[in-house]
Amino acid sequence: MSRLDFFVGRLTSQRAALNYAFGLIDGVPGPVVELGLGNGRSYDHLREHIKNRRIFVFERNVGAYPDCTPPDQDLILGEVTENLPRAVELVGQPAALLHSDLGSNDKPATKKLYERIAPGLRAALAKGGILVSDQPVETAGLEPLTAPDVMPGRYFIYRAI
Amino acid sequence: MSRLDFFVGRLTSQRAALNYAFGLIDGVPGPVVELGLGNGRSYDHLREHIKNRRIFVFERNVGAYPDCTPPDQDLILGEVTENLPRAVELVGQPAALLHSDLGSNDKPATKKLYERIAPGLRAALAKGGILVSDQPVETAGLEPLTAPDVMPGRYFIYRAI
Repeated sequence: MSRLDFFVGRLTSQRAALNYAFGLIDGVPGPVVELGLGNGRSYDHLREHIKNRRIFVFERNVGAYPDCTPPDQDLILGEVTENLPRAVELVGQPAALLHSDLGSNDKPATKKLYERIAPGLRAALAKGGILVSDQPVETAGLEPLTAPDVMPGRYFIYRAI
Repeated sequence: MSRLDFFVGRLTSQRAALNYAFGLIDGVPGPVVELGLGNGRSYDHLREHIKNRRIFVFERNVGAYPDCTPPDQDLILGEVTENLPRAVELVGQPAALLHSDLGSNDKPATKKLYERIAPGLRAALAKGGILVSDQPVETAGLEPLTAPDVMPGRYFIYRAI
């Protein structure tokens, strides 16, 4: 499997996971939170499919396409390790959907980061809310879900219980 | 259509176009040439599927994953506008497959670049050779092909006639 194959699998799985999550949050109150804006592709996808909720983005350095950059009032600048534990306070209420896309090519650092933020991911979510993540997350209060077209190990979905 | 949708379409079309081209070059002599290494994803794909030809890469600034960077002797550093017209000389013979992925978010500049290099793309190819391109190319001696799973307008295939 080439890097191209792998990346296609990752992106199609990301999209399938997000699309699946959209159907799961209908009855769950709260905004959407994205951790990691990147170039804004998935933010644009969230924005296109979720019209009736605010979408907050936590990011350290904004480097997205200008037309995929959130408005200032929806952008929470700073370190996710500092801001995620305060997420409910920062965005006003627990989130219905949380998309975390913080992994890098540094696998050990990515693993460490996710171990550190795992409880904060759960804490940022309303009960019944959905976490879509580029990395596996193990913490109390999150149950893994499987979704159509999401390749195992390539993207991850959890429900807050 | 979100940017995520668009990008998924672009990548899956790129891969489908390359995969289709692999089947077309069996009887055509010559190496493979890639213009634009990027992070090396498509180079890795070429390398995985084409074992019996050299794969040359033309690139200005190498910034690929270390394990997707070509060996020095297969890397042609410099401006493609300068090196492409000398491609046959630089790689030793006309190419059987040419993958050109030089587009940027600057659409006018991309269009201008491709207008400028179009004759060089044809000249770098053996007769019967295949051009796979991220941009449309119009020049004498290239006939457009259609390929399964390549979304129209998202990636382009031509045969040198």
